[in-house]
Amino acid sequence: MGEFELIRQYFMPLARLHGPHSLLVGPGDDCAIQQVPSGSDLVFSIDTLVVGVHFPLSYRPDYLGWRSLAVAASDLAAMGADPTCFTLALTLPEADEVWLRDFAFGLGKAAESFGLVLAGGDTTRGPLALSLQVHGLVPHGAAIRRSGARPGDLIVVSGTLGDAGAALDYLEALSPSTDEEFVLERYHHPEPRLTLGVALRSLATAAIDVSDGLLADLGHILEASSVGASIERARLPVSPALKRLKGLAAQDYALHSGDDYELCATIPEASWAGAPSSLKQQLTVIGVIESARGLRLDGAAVGSEADAVGFDHFRRKS
Amino acid sequence: MGEFELIRQYFMPLARLHGPHSLLVGPGDDCAIQQVPSGSDLVFSIDTLVVGVHFPLSYRPDYLGWRSLAVAASDLAAMGADPTCFTLALTLPEADEVWLRDFAFGLGKAAESFGLVLAGGDTTRGPLALSLQVHGLVPHGAAIRRSGARPGDLIVVSGTLGDAGAALDYLEALSPSTDEEFVLERYHHPEPRLTLGVALRSLATAAIDVSDGLLADLGHILEASSVGASIERARLPVSPALKRLKGLAAQDYALHSGDDYELCATIPEASWAGAPSSLKQQLTVIGVIESARGLRLDGAAVGSEADAVGFDHFRRKS
Repeated sequence: MGEFELIRQYFMPLARLHGPHSLLVGPGDDCAIQQVPSGSDLVFSIDTLVVGVHFPLSYRPDYLGWRSLAVAASDLAAMGADPTCFTLALTLPEADEVWLRDFAFGLGKAAESFGLVLAGGDTTRGPLALSLQVHGLVPHGAAIRRSGARPGDLIVVSGTLGDAGAALDYLEALSPSTDEEFVLERYHHPEPRLTLGVALRSLATAAIDVSDGLLADLGHILEASSVGASIERARLPVSPALKRLKGLAAQDYALHSGDDYELCATIPEASWAGAPSSLKQQLTVIGVIESARGLRLDGAAVGSEADAVGFDHFRRKS
Repeated sequence: MGEFELIRQYFMPLARLHGPHSLLVGPGDDCAIQQVPSGSDLVFSIDTLVVGVHFPLSYRPDYLGWRSLAVAASDLAAMGADPTCFTLALTLPEADEVWLRDFAFGLGKAAESFGLVLAGGDTTRGPLALSLQVHGLVPHGAAIRRSGARPGDLIVVSGTLGDAGAALDYLEALSPSTDEEFVLERYHHPEPRLTLGVALRSLATAAIDVSDGLLADLGHILEASSVGASIERARLPVSPALKRLKGLAAQDYALHSGDDYELCATIPEASWAGAPSSLKQQLTVIGVIESARGLRLDGAAVGSEADAVGFDHFRRKS
């Protein structure tokens, strides 16, 4: 079987995941075609993962498939978008059938789980790298931006923070403990908060996904919204596993480490008070937006170092 | 200046190229947002260029900037789409200021020339590679597919073929002749036939851009449309420069070599007869679609080898 046939065999099923959706033409023509319903805006984001930078060469291809789509889809969650489809630009040193099969398996599981159908792509030879562009839809003007946070808004985060960052310490563990397995799973299979993002559309004034660390990502909201904030260390949602593994340092992981792909959003107090309890249960209030610029942690100013980490992709390590 | 600031400085102007366009939110948030007018379909395609595979390390960054966007935009031309915006996933070993400046200059010239505004992107560290996704719009249902060719349709191509392929022989030339310079310019600065593509929307039953070579790309139309074709060697449009450089072999370049990014389309005879002469002047009739499967060149069957070259990205060399 030729290499093209091999790739086709493993990826074409990902283009047929759904019944009715907004994709009119999928892979196989010069372009894909998507129908954007009247009254909806198209929301899209592209993310690249490079071997040796974002993942080791030995990284399990099925995990890589899931993670790469999850990381990209998380940006849709942060905008409150309903996921529709994605493109995959895959660069491979060779067409290794086992690798392709496993990668496509993980990618396909993620695609099905997130509701994203493969719209098209490009496969080239070269050092292993992937760029994925995800597409979503929002009602016209309803996307959640980073720039809408206002003084008095509550700052909330979903799930727990710091798990995936702590997992980096156990990637090589031969027989990980239950707690280590928990944080490793959080790293390998992040769950973009797509349903939550859509629910936040009518409540949140601003949102971002926590990919670079809470301080850095909240910093992006503050900068885009021209506001400041106070947050409290004791309020940070930390998993029992992370607490057991890292003790007092657990909160530092929650503040600084990325890769959790939880959402951080700002919500006016009145909206929060009226929010359904099913939504509140998924979120933790960690602080409040203030008019005074800068970020304060338990009352003490947090240096701008946090912004630099998040902004500068060239300094990112993972 | 930090690396992020450097990149921002050179790329942000590309996000402000246009006045009114369909981009509601550009770079800087979790996602970009595009408004797709009611009655229009979104058309999109992603292409990757990798150093050492698609271009040499020493390739001029301003040429690379132009070429990378031209190659991607050519897919929009093939669908008859009006270009709107693009995303850039750029992987760089280091943030070399001169390289970035020159690359952004070439990319910016292309963006302005093609009418494509930068919508967003991702910059990562790693071996030099680029993935670009281009977006365009077509009236609902009006995109030109590969699958619409019907027996009796005339086969036309735009411009001249083979120039860019011949240019590969002169890439290292220290003082190229005028003819060599002509074909080199065709290679370095391909012009996606965007205006022509839009004009073909109401005439063509099928279209593709010639990126892998005429035989391979026409083969894709034949396969997608379940038809065959006869073409004539003597009708192939070849530039005077290519004729002088390659003599009798010029037509072989026109048949086999890619990188010209001209359009190949099929048009019913009646439509062709009624087409405006300004359009006809940009096109050359090279053959006709037939119901008998396969591709015939001057009456002799062309082997399926042609298809394989085009289909199998892993075999592409340039």
